[in-house]
Amino acid sequence: MKNFEIIHEDNKARIGILKTQYGQIETPIFLAVATRGVGKHYTSMDLIAIDHNSIISNALILNFRPGSQLIEEMGGLHKFMNFNGCIFTDCGGFQASRHFFQGKDNTGLNFLNPYNNQKFKITPKSIMNIQLEIGSDVAMMLDDMAPYGASYDQAKEAMELTHKWGKLSLDFHNKLKIEKNSNQMLFGIVQGNFYEDLRKESAKYISSLNFDGIAIGGVAIGEPKEEMYMAVNSAIVHLPREKPKYIMGLGTPLDILNMIEKGVDVFDSVYPTKVARHNTLFTKDGLIYLNRGKHKNDNNPIEKDCDCIACLNYSRAYINHLSKIEETSALRLKSLHNIRFIKRMIEDAKIAIKEKRFKEFKEEFTKRFEKK
Amino acid sequence: MKNFEIIHEDNKARIGILKTQYGQIETPIFLAVATRGVGKHYTSMDLIAIDHNSIISNALILNFRPGSQLIEEMGGLHKFMNFNGCIFTDCGGFQASRHFFQGKDNTGLNFLNPYNNQKFKITPKSIMNIQLEIGSDVAMMLDDMAPYGASYDQAKEAMELTHKWGKLSLDFHNKLKIEKNSNQMLFGIVQGNFYEDLRKESAKYISSLNFDGIAIGGVAIGEPKEEMYMAVNSAIVHLPREKPKYIMGLGTPLDILNMIEKGVDVFDSVYPTKVARHNTLFTKDGLIYLNRGKHKNDNNPIEKDCDCIACLNYSRAYINHLSKIEETSALRLKSLHNIRFIKRMIEDAKIAIKEKRFKEFKEEFTKRFEKK
Repeated sequence: MKNFEIIHEDNKARIGILKTQYGQIETPIFLAVATRGVGKHYTSMDLIAIDHNSIISNALILNFRPGSQLIEEMGGLHKFMNFNGCIFTDCGGFQASRHFFQGKDNTGLNFLNPYNNQKFKITPKSIMNIQLEIGSDVAMMLDDMAPYGASYDQAKEAMELTHKWGKLSLDFHNKLKIEKNSNQMLFGIVQGNFYEDLRKESAKYISSLNFDGIAIGGVAIGEPKEEMYMAVNSAIVHLPREKPKYIMGLGTPLDILNMIEKGVDVFDSVYPTKVARHNTLFTKDGLIYLNRGKHKNDNNPIEKDCDCIACLNYSRAYINHLSKIEETSALRLKSLHNIRFIKRMIEDAKIAIKEKRFKEFKEEFTKRFEKK
Repeated sequence: MKNFEIIHEDNKARIGILKTQYGQIETPIFLAVATRGVGKHYTSMDLIAIDHNSIISNALILNFRPGSQLIEEMGGLHKFMNFNGCIFTDCGGFQASRHFFQGKDNTGLNFLNPYNNQKFKITPKSIMNIQLEIGSDVAMMLDDMAPYGASYDQAKEAMELTHKWGKLSLDFHNKLKIEKNSNQMLFGIVQGNFYEDLRKESAKYISSLNFDGIAIGGVAIGEPKEEMYMAVNSAIVHLPREKPKYIMGLGTPLDILNMIEKGVDVFDSVYPTKVARHNTLFTKDGLIYLNRGKHKNDNNPIEKDCDCIACLNYSRAYINHLSKIEETSALRLKSLHNIRFIKRMIEDAKIAIKEKRFKEFKEEFTKRFEKK
């Protein structure tokens, strides 16, 4: 059985069907972030209420708390968090930039569990086991991500370790999947930092392995936009058309549209919810800043034609009030609006792809979004 | 038109219909607390989702922020917070125990607006105006509450000021209601601290005025249970059967049942949500403490037959996880469970009243609740 089928194409933009153990999901998709098995201020039921069916959680963080074995005992992450949608898990490579990272060697990454201060090492093999215990639909290989500003040698070393770990992750995942009778997919990750030739080399190598999909990692880590686009462009042209493509950590509404145009199928980012918590809300007419005085007595919803729980029920004035008094419901409502905005934008993009007018759609959307 | 009709009685316990400008609501009711025009961690839509149709907000606090005039401009509090249920507003007398209270004189209470540090005085008249601007269904008169431990003279003085303010509130409210073409009800408040004769005197005086309902205030302010019951018992026997009775600030599940038995119709309390936030959850088999280790891998809902959003969707293990990682969704889910528990308990009490077996119901409920 093929895990991914492309059903519509408009130049490089496409609509696909990702066949996961949970069911089928139409791409492009945006994975709402649920790092710790829950969104920040929103629940799985909140996502279902806005018709959002795909999330990304983090295997390393979940293993710190509540523990992957506990999640397995509770029936897996879908059941534990009551989310009958598509769950990706990231593996922890990205967490190497976090304060609880304790260094790496050729065999894996060392962390300090922030909940009990005990040392905890993840290896390409151990994190496969953890992800299978968690029972996500799509697991990620362990990668080694060089930071923004890394030297060529540092970037090359991280890429080579990523490649080595990719092969180990894949072999072990194939073995474990049979043992556990699981249909979990495994995606590879392209690294190479912001060096064109390394991105190309990494894209080719990762594509040569039998992953179910391919992610571009190590972007959106603080670099200027043009470097991000250079890194992605250098890699993406070397990835096979027929595999699902995932750009990790993007992004803004316009980043997502630009990447859909290049054939990307999967996105995740904290950006929509992070800015929402700070009162920056998405509308088709651009960003609005809900903490401005002019919204204090604005009886309109955040966005007039939006069908999210915030827009269907509350005015800008009311959400402004909730924000001013620092009620957590404000964080929840604003986050859900921005997530819903991205989903609706992608749904519109899919219609445009079907009608072979994605380029025009993107241009119109961008023009209107940037007008304000 | 009568504002309140008793439709079932079982000794003193009764079911009534309170006819507010929003519509009809069957009593006994528990008012979920929405002091600032929103619950703590939950929204009006969350209450609607658990079929909860009555809240209490606070006119003084709402006037500090966002301002009663703004709320009026936005169409009143029902529309502002999108709650098509019954809204009571308290007037601020209770806030005299708070840090922003600046003392009183015979004409009113002085506060410092915590949001802008400006002096703000409320009088029996001004708070009527504020409550009409807010547009609640039931307004409360301005009262003067003596603290727990007050001397007889201090308690008497506060009671006498309460009586004076009650008369002023009522006269002004009647006048304003006509001007504003409003059907807002106004409830009187019995004070008298923990002195039997003062409670009796206050109950008789407040009953002699033409309020739409009568509240017993100044209880649940730190006194031992027996003093609370003494104060209530001293007052309640002097209140007219035909008016709706409201005990402010109660309480625990068993307090509520005990008061329903005495003929109380309306309750409000932060207790259910406050303890919920600290992991104490109500079940028919008593309190459970969700932060205990034994719930870490407990796949059961908080309460098996409960139909709240937490119990229908999540396990104790999952909510325990959300609490441990300090996610606000945990506070929301736990609060909604305890609110729903009180509502379901009251619904069961109403069935028992209809079937003339309230006493047995209360005894059985209490026995099971206290067993653990």
